[in-house]
Amino acid sequence: MKNILIFICVFQTTYPLINGVEYEPTWDSLDNRPLPEWYDKAKVGIFLHWGVYAVPGFGSEWFWMKWKGTKLPSHVEFMKKNYPPNFTYQDFAKEFKAEFYDPEKWAELFKASGAKYVVLTSKHHEGYTLWPSTYSYSWNSMDVGPQRDLLGELTDAVRNQSLRMGFYYSLYEWFNPRYLADKRWIFTKKDYIDNKMMPELKELVNRYEPDVVWSDGDAEALDSYWKGREFLAWLYNESPVKDKVVVNDRWGLGTHCKHGGYYTCNDRYNPGVLQPHKWENAMTIDKYSWGHRRYINYKDVLTSFELIKTMVETVSCGGNILINVGPTKEGTIIPIFQERLLDLGKWLDINGEAIYESTPWSVQNDTIAKVWYTAKPGTVYAISLEWPNNSRLLLGSTAKLFRSSNTTVEMLGYDKSLKWRTADNSTVIRLPEKADIQVEWAWVLRITNFS
Amino acid sequence: MKNILIFICVFQTTYPLINGVEYEPTWDSLDNRPLPEWYDKAKVGIFLHWGVYAVPGFGSEWFWMKWKGTKLPSHVEFMKKNYPPNFTYQDFAKEFKAEFYDPEKWAELFKASGAKYVVLTSKHHEGYTLWPSTYSYSWNSMDVGPQRDLLGELTDAVRNQSLRMGFYYSLYEWFNPRYLADKRWIFTKKDYIDNKMMPELKELVNRYEPDVVWSDGDAEALDSYWKGREFLAWLYNESPVKDKVVVNDRWGLGTHCKHGGYYTCNDRYNPGVLQPHKWENAMTIDKYSWGHRRYINYKDVLTSFELIKTMVETVSCGGNILINVGPTKEGTIIPIFQERLLDLGKWLDINGEAIYESTPWSVQNDTIAKVWYTAKPGTVYAISLEWPNNSRLLLGSTAKLFRSSNTTVEMLGYDKSLKWRTADNSTVIRLPEKADIQVEWAWVLRITNFS
Amino acid sequence: MKNILIFICVFQTTYPLINGVEYEPTWDSLDNRPLPEWYDKAKVGIFLHWGVYAVPGFGSEWFWMKWKGTKLPSHVEFMKKNYPPNFTYQDFAKEFKAEFYDPEKWAELFKASGAKYVVLTSKHHEGYTLWPSTYSYSWNSMDVGPQRDLLGELTDAVRNQSLRMGFYYSLYEWFNPRYLADKRWIFTKKDYIDNKMMPELKELVNRYEPDVVWSDGDAEALDSYWKGREFLAWLYNESPVKDKVVVNDRWGLGTHCKHGGYYTCNDRYNPGVLQPHKWENAMTIDKYSWGHRRYINYKDVLTSFELIKTMVETVSCGGNILINVGPTKEGTIIPIFQERLLDLGKWLDINGEAIYESTPWSVQNDTIAKVWYTAKPGTVYAISLEWPNNSRLLLGSTAKLFRSSNTTVEMLGYDKSLKWRTADNSTVIRLPEKADIQVEWAWVLRITNFS
Amino acid sequence: MKNILIFICVFQTTYPLINGVEYEPTWDSLDNRPLPEWYDKAKVGIFLHWGVYAVPGFGSEWFWMKWKGTKLPSHVEFMKKNYPPNFTYQDFAKEFKAEFYDPEKWAELFKASGAKYVVLTSKHHEGYTLWPSTYSYSWNSMDVGPQRDLLGELTDAVRNQSLRMGFYYSLYEWFNPRYLADKRWIFTKKDYIDNKMMPELKELVNRYEPDVVWSDGDAEALDSYWKGREFLAWLYNESPVKDKVVVNDRWGLGTHCKHGGYYTCNDRYNPGVLQPHKWENAMTIDKYSWGHRRYINYKDVLTSFELIKTMVETVSCGGNILINVGPTKEGTIIPIFQERLLDLGKWLDINGEAIYESTPWSVQNDTIAKVWYTAKPGTVYAISLEWPNNSRLLLGSTAKLFRSSNTTVEMLGYDKSLKWRTADNSTVIRLPEKADIQVEWAWVLRITNFS
Repeated sequence: MKNILIFICVFQTTYPLINGVEYEPTWDSLDNRPLPEWYDKAKVGIFLHWGVYAVPGFGSEWFWMKWKGTKLPSHVEFMKKNYPPNFTYQDFAKEFKAEFYDPEKWAELFKASGAKYVVLTSKHHEGYTLWPSTYSYSWNSMDVGPQRDLLGELTDAVRNQSLRMGFYYSLYEWFNPRYLADKRWIFTKKDYIDNKMMPELKELVNRYEPDVVWSDGDAEALDSYWKGREFLAWLYNESPVKDKVVVNDRWGLGTHCKHGGYYTCNDRYNPGVLQPHKWENAMTIDKYSWGHRRYINYKDVLTSFELIKTMVETVSCGGNILINVGPTKEGTIIPIFQERLLDLGKWLDINGEAIYESTPWSVQNDTIAKVWYTAKPGTVYAISLEWPNNSRLLLGSTAKLFRSSNTTVEMLGYDKSLKWRTADNSTVIRLPEKADIQVEWAWVLRITNFS
Repeated sequence: MKNILIFICVFQTTYPLINGVEYEPTWDSLDNRPLPEWYDKAKVGIFLHWGVYAVPGFGSEWFWMKWKGTKLPSHVEFMKKNYPPNFTYQDFAKEFKAEFYDPEKWAELFKASGAKYVVLTSKHHEGYTLWPSTYSYSWNSMDVGPQRDLLGELTDAVRNQSLRMGFYYSLYEWFNPRYLADKRWIFTKKDYIDNKMMPELKELVNRYEPDVVWSDGDAEALDSYWKGREFLAWLYNESPVKDKVVVNDRWGLGTHCKHGGYYTCNDRYNPGVLQPHKWENAMTIDKYSWGHRRYINYKDVLTSFELIKTMVETVSCGGNILINVGPTKEGTIIPIFQERLLDLGKWLDINGEAIYESTPWSVQNDTIAKVWYTAKPGTVYAISLEWPNNSRLLLGSTAKLFRSSNTTVEMLGYDKSLKWRTADNSTVIRLPEKADIQVEWAWVLRITNFS
Repeated sequence: MKNILIFICVFQTTYPLINGVEYEPTWDSLDNRPLPEWYDKAKVGIFLHWGVYAVPGFGSEWFWMKWKGTKLPSHVEFMKKNYPPNFTYQDFAKEFKAEFYDPEKWAELFKASGAKYVVLTSKHHEGYTLWPSTYSYSWNSMDVGPQRDLLGELTDAVRNQSLRMGFYYSLYEWFNPRYLADKRWIFTKKDYIDNKMMPELKELVNRYEPDVVWSDGDAEALDSYWKGREFLAWLYNESPVKDKVVVNDRWGLGTHCKHGGYYTCNDRYNPGVLQPHKWENAMTIDKYSWGHRRYINYKDVLTSFELIKTMVETVSCGGNILINVGPTKEGTIIPIFQERLLDLGKWLDINGEAIYESTPWSVQNDTIAKVWYTAKPGTVYAISLEWPNNSRLLLGSTAKLFRSSNTTVEMLGYDKSLKWRTADNSTVIRLPEKADIQVEWAWVLRITNFS
Repeated sequence: MKNILIFICVFQTTYPLINGVEYEPTWDSLDNRPLPEWYDKAKVGIFLHWGVYAVPGFGSEWFWMKWKGTKLPSHVEFMKKNYPPNFTYQDFAKEFKAEFYDPEKWAELFKASGAKYVVLTSKHHEGYTLWPSTYSYSWNSMDVGPQRDLLGELTDAVRNQSLRMGFYYSLYEWFNPRYLADKRWIFTKKDYIDNKMMPELKELVNRYEPDVVWSDGDAEALDSYWKGREFLAWLYNESPVKDKVVVNDRWGLGTHCKHGGYYTCNDRYNPGVLQPHKWENAMTIDKYSWGHRRYINYKDVLTSFELIKTMVETVSCGGNILINVGPTKEGTIIPIFQERLLDLGKWLDINGEAIYESTPWSVQNDTIAKVWYTAKPGTVYAISLEWPNNSRLLLGSTAKLFRSSNTTVEMLGYDKSLKWRTADNSTVIRLPEKADIQVEWAWVLRITNFS
């Protein structure tokens, strides 16, 4: 009996060879896979941190670790003041009711924001899964709390809006005893990997077919512990999403910014200069947290200008932006976040041309003006983050575009061409009356017909 | 024994005569009292609907009545879906924790909004009091829920910001059996009035010394049942706040818009024309509710422009505006409300001169432009709700101000005078470059030196 | 108008004079009222302490006072260990669900116990009423917790079993601010009495027509404060229960064991000697508490023998016994209490003849044997609390009953007469084989045909 | 790599051979193991069903299955009436607080009951473990609910009383998706066994070193699925408890009453005739449930007589009795259960000689009297379940004991020998005066000196 099983096993792993599309579980091989095209074109995604931490809604999504792990005084004090002494983190889950959760409404909002994909925390470091995972019995959204497949419902709704759907998945779980046991064995044991994490992650992929697998929580161990390479080889060779899926770079100590799919490097990664490898700026509208904080204050929230500015910088330097909002335990996205996303959508409605499917230009940001550039074949977009004095925009990096007098400059959302002249190496463009322009926050000049 | 008591009673009610400031408990007498001056000068107040209804946070602050009284299907369904069958409204109170309630922060926000007074629901129709009322044992914020004197704490904080503090007080209580018994007797019994409501209201006045008593919940009975006139005579003659207090007009069936202090008439009263009697536009930033709704959506919220527009219209017509926000059961004011209030404050910082201590002008709104007027001695303020085409504002109602060429026009927040000319009966004012103006939403022209 | 009211008032209080059955609100007059006969005949009642204190179920029904009033360390510690810091006593009420409350079952149990009346705490010192009191809005069993008229339902069920129904009512309420205000005025104010307690107590009487009014919580003030005499005059003259109602003696400082109806003196009053005035031994099967304790231990519970012994002593000395059990928050009476009551019922089934409708005999307890006596015309009952050595019972106080050889001695539950002989002043009675007797705990000898 | 693993495996399983005490994972081999002696001598054990089902406390410990699995109307109705619709079984766990749990008190009670061992449900079919299992993250008593190692604490306390400690362990888990997946594969997959159940069961054994492993929940699959034989081989050969541990017979479909250690056959197994194999009567004092029912009624509880009768019958026929009580969610054992156990202990104090370390006699129960027999070398015990008429006990099965006039008959708890005589094949024994005997419920005659 055993021999037969081994045979089957061998058969399976060699099968893809026949199709000639095999990736080996080595970084050399895996890093060679081309990134599916849709991802670079999309530019803008929505990130959602949602889990049991929304119930205390205090501090951040790291609530449990800060309360019980590092014992941060503010967190310890909060619990002491508001809960009985023998209250456990898991006891919160009962209050995670999601009674107002309406995934269709969420998906409409994301669509209206101009985002092209959505990434939801399928499981954060707490280990609670937002779908009925076979491997997280009694610690998932069907068994305790909402009694709904939160993830599955959102996946359907998002796809109905023609957006792509991806999942964040935390490799480690702070307090899972199987993981902690492996850790005590300095990761020479892999019980957690083999019997919990890996079958669970594959279930997630097989059942919901994500467009993005956004790995995290990997930094305590090398990728050899996590078996990330084996997973990626499976994902690229055999999984039902092998042609469309993109992944990030968090597959173990030493892989960040170095291996995998696109690079996320650090949270809120925004290098300000062109990157040689496709990357993503995962950032959050609440400056202090990814998960919902119940006492979030207006001044903690990025303004619409700050959000658009960050997106422009990111895209100019070749990145995608993944904009995070933390839903509430009730299942809502609070109005201030809606407002930011809708402002972004309003801006992209007119100016999206400079963002979607664009590439970086030879210059990223202007030497004189607060202007960032993007490009498409035959077109350069100059995105100004302020309205210049006297409505005259002085550019320092565009000399080569204005050598011919044919060069045309238009402002997106305004129907007449703009006058321009050059002087030394700089160009002055005369903007319209500001009162005639509906656009706020940043203004895009489309430059064409340059020789 | 009884005779002696009657004697004391007579002595008390005649005592004020000695000081010569007596008001009789008749509308003829009470309506003669001049409104304390501070109120008309203040123009802008904040209204707060806070109570146990913040716990379900569903529908509105009328949740209980709609659930158990009129049995609105949406409300009945909500309870059926989310609570056990034998759950009572009072059972909600335990979840009213106000764990993030920081009255100093609230008061700073109200100060920053430009408001000059605050009105808090001391008790809404549910009967739950936000202070430890002697007459509402076990149904107040000290006995069940927050275990704090929510009202007293806010009163102190608001006064520390040099703002005035007032209280909304509901005369009736939907489900108080003492009230319902009186009602069954067609209000010929007054047990509820004599032994619950009146001593409670007086306790509120004596203990917290409000600047405003905002009566409500009066419409089921005549003022003779409520003993409103007796209360006002006491309030004006004897109470510790007799010199400063203002009241509204909701003292019983038939008194609205007719008797009492200033008029509130209906909720969101905004007549659009000058009123002969001082009035107040009590309105709410959430278009659909005064109390917090947990699922409030961005599109349900007045924009900053709509809020400022309403304020301008109201003040032009002689009203004060009382802007409502509904705090959460956690004790927070959600960021979108903060943003609206801070936008208002930003606007008033520059343009408050046209609002505070102003009076209506002879004309309220312009015949041509979307402009509303206010005035001060020697000055007229024209408040434009839109930026005009070509930055040229054409006014149809100001001919008399521009008969002399000395007439000066300035824009608040801009340091140079504006050019103007007249044609027929209209005036054209040339506005600055819009790009040079920081003000958003509405622009104020100060017109002076007219003959 | 006032005159007319006074007239009516006079008319009402003088009305009963016409029927010639008037009681004045003086102790001289009230103490003259004969106790309705049913009460002395009944002998055995059930006492029920049920309220919000069943939720913590800790310490006793005095939980609140010991926690927040006297701050008993054990109680403070219990709360600290198990509840959040800002938990109030009233917050417990939501957990008082009574989901298994079946008043018919209770009434059947009381019937089977041999009791003839039931006394339920309509309101204990916490102030929470077990019926929807008009005067305890939001602090009663209809508004918060069970959402049922616990008292009304039990009243019906008890009467369906042909038992009588009475109510315990606490005059004071530990933490009611109206009461505390009166107390601060050294009881010269009577706001609590006039506007809360007295209308509430009358509502209770009028609506549920009790057979017993069991007053308590009176000891902080004189009866003049409580208006107990006025209440009793009303109860005896005018109330719907004037002919049947019995009351106790707790109507103010100085009235205990002195005024009112029957005397209860102290809790667990069991003087051991004949009393000149009808009295009641209110005692409890849980040695340490009247309310349910969730951690009640077997050794805290009176044995069936101790219970029967206490009853026998009590009845011999002219008392009634009122046996307390504390129901749970779920609405159950725990099995050990059921067992005790059913054991009592089993004993009374055979031996009740010596208890019900009996009177004390000339001697209460025997000089030699552990025997207590009761009597009926022509009959003396000797109740032995132990089975004597050699099955020969030696009595020291019965000489006069055995002067004639006709004197007959029988044992209840045994069908043959017993042999006896006298020696000196004592009597020896030969009991049957113990193995032939079903009765346990105490054995009753019926002595008749003495001259 | 794989070959090496297999090699290690083989090495491990053959290792015990070296010590010469090997059991193979076959029934032939395993069934040959002699039962450790302590077990048969002990006779009386306490069984404890404790888990999350104590929170609803409704129906029985099968609450979840009856509610969600078979949808028993009574259970569905109970939930509908008392809980919100989206309440899950796991949501109950938060209310499992065990705030009064005092394992030392429990152990004292069990000691006083006369029991010699205790068996606690380490995990019932719900899957919730009473210790912090590495394999039941967030679904155990440390993570959710009591926040204590309930099992570990009791184990220590029980051993401090010199009693033995064992664990019930349910092989299957009704709703564990890993188990259900295996089941859908008709048990050809063993993911649940290999990655959840087996490592967990071994952790339990290794960490707490039980004296009894009481398997259950096995009946849906053959023992080949459960790997019960492999487990027992490990348990007998290698585990830290290999010398002392006893197990039962529930190791898969077809093993009941046939394989394993002692036989339990069915619940409440009480065959009434001598068994060829050591067996145990697992029964419960609550006639209707093993888990605590919050509304348990007096009449649902076995009387002390019924309990003693069952024990006597069981021991006479060669069985042990395992007496179940279901603790409450608060961590208490209710007084009526305490009373039953203490009554048993009182009986065993005097009569334990006839129970502990006894063996069956050649006859189990008498042909005439309600008498059951046990024996020790040179002694026969006749245990009478009733007190005979005229205190003369007529035995039909003891002829051979009374052939010699030396035969001595004594009653345990009575200090004189009893007179006897024979007639035909029967024996009449004259009992003492019942009044001289303290023993209740059953009386033991010690018969010695027979030839």
